[in-house]
Amino acid sequence: MPTYTPPLRDMQFVMHEVFHLTDEFKAMPRYAEVDVDTVNAVLQEAGRFAAEVTFPLNISGDTEGCQLDTATHEVTTPKGFKEAYGKYVEGGWAALSCDPEFGGQGLPFALNQCLYEMLNSANQAWTMYPGLSHGAYEALVAHGTDEQKKTYLPKLTSGEWTGTMCLTEPHCGTDLGLLRTKAEPVGDGTYRITGNKIFISAGEHGFTDNIVHLVLARLPDAPKGSKGISLFVVPKFKVSADGSLGERNPIFCTALEHKMGIHGNATCALALDGAVGTLVGEPHKGLAAMFVMMNAARLGVGNQSLGLTEVAFQNALAYAKERLQMRSLSGKKAKDKEADPIIVHPDVRKMLLTARAYADGARALQVLCSLLVDKAHHHPDEKVRKDSDQLVALLTPIVKAFVTDNGFAATNACMQVFGGHGYIKEWGMEQFVRDARINMIYEGTNTVQSLDLLGRKVLGDQGAALKKLGKLVGQLVQEEGVNEAMAEFINPIALLGEQMTKFTTEIGFKGFQNPDEVGAAAVDYLRVAGHLVFGYLFARMAQVALRKIAEGSTDPFYTAKLQTARFYFAKLFPEIHSLMRTARAGSKSLMDTDAVLA
Amino acid sequence: MPTYTPPLRDMQFVMHEVFHLTDEFKAMPRYAEVDVDTVNAVLQEAGRFAAEVTFPLNISGDTEGCQLDTATHEVTTPKGFKEAYGKYVEGGWAALSCDPEFGGQGLPFALNQCLYEMLNSANQAWTMYPGLSHGAYEALVAHGTDEQKKTYLPKLTSGEWTGTMCLTEPHCGTDLGLLRTKAEPVGDGTYRITGNKIFISAGEHGFTDNIVHLVLARLPDAPKGSKGISLFVVPKFKVSADGSLGERNPIFCTALEHKMGIHGNATCALALDGAVGTLVGEPHKGLAAMFVMMNAARLGVGNQSLGLTEVAFQNALAYAKERLQMRSLSGKKAKDKEADPIIVHPDVRKMLLTARAYADGARALQVLCSLLVDKAHHHPDEKVRKDSDQLVALLTPIVKAFVTDNGFAATNACMQVFGGHGYIKEWGMEQFVRDARINMIYEGTNTVQSLDLLGRKVLGDQGAALKKLGKLVGQLVQEEGVNEAMAEFINPIALLGEQMTKFTTEIGFKGFQNPDEVGAAAVDYLRVAGHLVFGYLFARMAQVALRKIAEGSTDPFYTAKLQTARFYFAKLFPEIHSLMRTARAGSKSLMDTDAVLA
Repeated sequence: MPTYTPPLRDMQFVMHEVFHLTDEFKAMPRYAEVDVDTVNAVLQEAGRFAAEVTFPLNISGDTEGCQLDTATHEVTTPKGFKEAYGKYVEGGWAALSCDPEFGGQGLPFALNQCLYEMLNSANQAWTMYPGLSHGAYEALVAHGTDEQKKTYLPKLTSGEWTGTMCLTEPHCGTDLGLLRTKAEPVGDGTYRITGNKIFISAGEHGFTDNIVHLVLARLPDAPKGSKGISLFVVPKFKVSADGSLGERNPIFCTALEHKMGIHGNATCALALDGAVGTLVGEPHKGLAAMFVMMNAARLGVGNQSLGLTEVAFQNALAYAKERLQMRSLSGKKAKDKEADPIIVHPDVRKMLLTARAYADGARALQVLCSLLVDKAHHHPDEKVRKDSDQLVALLTPIVKAFVTDNGFAATNACMQVFGGHGYIKEWGMEQFVRDARINMIYEGTNTVQSLDLLGRKVLGDQGAALKKLGKLVGQLVQEEGVNEAMAEFINPIALLGEQMTKFTTEIGFKGFQNPDEVGAAAVDYLRVAGHLVFGYLFARMAQVALRKIAEGSTDPFYTAKLQTARFYFAKLFPEIHSLMRTARAGSKSLMDTDAVLA
Repeated sequence: MPTYTPPLRDMQFVMHEVFHLTDEFKAMPRYAEVDVDTVNAVLQEAGRFAAEVTFPLNISGDTEGCQLDTATHEVTTPKGFKEAYGKYVEGGWAALSCDPEFGGQGLPFALNQCLYEMLNSANQAWTMYPGLSHGAYEALVAHGTDEQKKTYLPKLTSGEWTGTMCLTEPHCGTDLGLLRTKAEPVGDGTYRITGNKIFISAGEHGFTDNIVHLVLARLPDAPKGSKGISLFVVPKFKVSADGSLGERNPIFCTALEHKMGIHGNATCALALDGAVGTLVGEPHKGLAAMFVMMNAARLGVGNQSLGLTEVAFQNALAYAKERLQMRSLSGKKAKDKEADPIIVHPDVRKMLLTARAYADGARALQVLCSLLVDKAHHHPDEKVRKDSDQLVALLTPIVKAFVTDNGFAATNACMQVFGGHGYIKEWGMEQFVRDARINMIYEGTNTVQSLDLLGRKVLGDQGAALKKLGKLVGQLVQEEGVNEAMAEFINPIALLGEQMTKFTTEIGFKGFQNPDEVGAAAVDYLRVAGHLVFGYLFARMAQVALRKIAEGSTDPFYTAKLQTARFYFAKLFPEIHSLMRTARAGSKSLMDTDAVLA
């Protein structure tokens, strides 16, 4: 059975020593009082909740899955899931980063993301129940009417109700412009919504009295395509003016999907049969409102893979230290044992270090992004808000795609460390792989992310956002360019930073002549950009570690950070050399293939 | 629901047009009569069996799994599995490439491997039941006594009985030197064997009257370690001198593993409680006998991933042509439809072509290896036998590791083409991924393969075997070096061929000073070697295609082969540039990590 220890020190390192979050908070009135002790105390309690309450339900949740009662349309979740949710609400975790106006604790998003990293390590399937509420919450905060805010936000904040995102239909996922669900105005300001949704995570369950569905649908006068989509809030039970629950709204779970992983989460097909809802935001502008949910969700998906990478690493490391098999190539290490622990083998170390580095890089990126989100929302200086927003918009597809591709590679590597035992369910490793696999797909496939990055975020503004990233890297290079101890970390990112401009211009130019060139290069481009970002983050982590060591620290924690950075630059970062070649190979070998793809 | 069409034309292309198998057969008395028509007729019938009999049981087999009756120790396999096996035996498939001396049809191993490619596409879990018999058959042919051959080989040949390989124990997999199962001589030439085995594929089932277990165990006077292991044949039911079945031998299935995939195969824990067996080969030389099984099994595992890659490709291609979603970046393609089929998108094509290229490369490699095995066994010229044996020994770890890593990447890419639907069981794509995952682990993990390749097969004989591969590549380069049409395929392999010698020498030199350098480079080295081999094979396939086109053929089949080769060199082969860098980065960043792996 796997174990999980919340990586509090690693989180604190990134939050306090690399990004100095609480110093940044001081500039934001809402967070000015959040100090290191508060952060650490919350992290510790959050870690305890994850490790003690939801982690023990991870394997049983996978084994039991969810069941639908087709007569009542009610869903039974795995044993203990509901009770764990009760404790979550009771502990105030749902409200952690919500607005005090609606009963929230008003703590930084960065702290909430750390809570979620641990929840995801512990039990991704369970975590999606409260996790989906955040999207609904954000959409209503940004676009809800006062009435909607009053009705739903206090309940979503407390966790008394949960939320969902109802986008996908059988014939449309990526291409929401095709969606068919209809909303007919009743005349009293409400709408009757009819249609079929699929793949609705946490779409039904018995955790709460009510579920707040955010549903995309078309009004009768809607233009075709994505400019004719509106967003509605459709509660499972209608809500009276006094807040009491009324009759059941006809939005019913008609089927549960049988999936590769995240078995503990109820992935629902929902049928809406004239379900009553109210409009969120303006008519036909539903996609904009939806993107408020989606951007939060994309950061959340990266965070899921970070969580899985961390827990898979911890277990693979423990196994590699215990499992005795063969001798080290460079001579017996455990002379008193019948064989050496497999951690003596270079490739076993490579698999472990891959996971360790991908976890450390993802965590640093996640904390950076959450800080940017906090600044974008709460910094008093408008320019800071705008800059932060632009940078996090650029980084979001990297978080979603780079971190989830890495997470799948990392959980796979950790499973491989177990040999045949990795393939057996009771060890828990193959579940991490199966759960991690969905993260490359949902909330926009990783291909969609790459097009968002290269097409929209990079080329779409003529490289302006990319320059902001380049500036971050450039600052560090300038700061440390003459520091010999930092050269091994600075040189590779300085070089890639320079190459990146030329590389981008080249693709942009080719794409101008033939847009398929952008599509052909995008996935490779995103990984190169991901390595530029990770390279920058590892250099920053190494910088802190080197300073601490220079100051006389003998804490092996800092040595570990240095070793991880060295491993990253030696064994993972060089992937850019192949990626830049395959990106430059262009679109012809992909598109001129009608005979083979006939 | 997935579909499967046996890729007969692709097989015939490699067999007849690239490797001219039947010309090669003419030199081998046993196969001299095997002509093109015979090969094609067998392929067609084999394909029909796979597509019509075992493929329809693939998803249901995954869903149902196997059940153990703990009272009787009998295992129930998924519905239809036993009947399919009956048809397999009835059709004579079990005997296809077995020796006529024992009732076999005496057809080439190359043909048997093509049968197995299709069986693996259709249903890997089912195919392992007959597949495991081959190892037992080979071990007994090579090392069995006359008595053992007479007792077991006709039954294994006909398929009336199946065989297993009982190696792994709870505390030892890779490191068989640690095994504890004991064999006590009874005095009458038999042994009583006691111990616990795990991970025994097809270890129990109700298909046949008897199961022939090949079991590794230690004699009382055995030296410690791997030089004290002996091989025994232990039937489920004892066999009387007249061939009739006697009493039940105490070798009992005590548990079935719950696995990530291959659910339809019974992966058994077997308890031997004084089970009676006879010695195969010499005392303490069991590992040598075991390697006869193992080498065949390793080629077989690569073949499993080839099969899964092919079937995943076929289904992803069909889906990509049907699924309408978004518009092509370079302008609407399906103007009469509400969206374009997703195959218009460059990255969707990249995912499909990755699978297509990995299938084509693996198939060519598999046919080459089977031909080498046939030559090693049946060629009249001893030098040809020896050379073939040496080359196939070099290629075996590449087949096992490169093809299975590629197969996992390819099935994953094909699953990704389906977006969210790929994650849902009913589409069948996620099962291909789960089934493909075991192939990177069993019969020696892919790390073990890389050490076998670099440590034993390449450096172990000072590059002699590698030179044989280099000679093959060199011949093609010489043949086509002045042909401008071939330059795009010849140049990259000519260059890599040259680099390979220096690269190998470099690692060998470093490894001489520090053996961990070999362990640190081995996995990357194997993939570089894999690309050299695939590059050679794609160049040979392109050569045939170009000749046909030059001769005036307008058959799009040849255009497809050219397009696949071009894709391979543009988008997959360049992986070598990162691999050579990470291999050269050496062992320090892996081994100097005690703080991070504390």
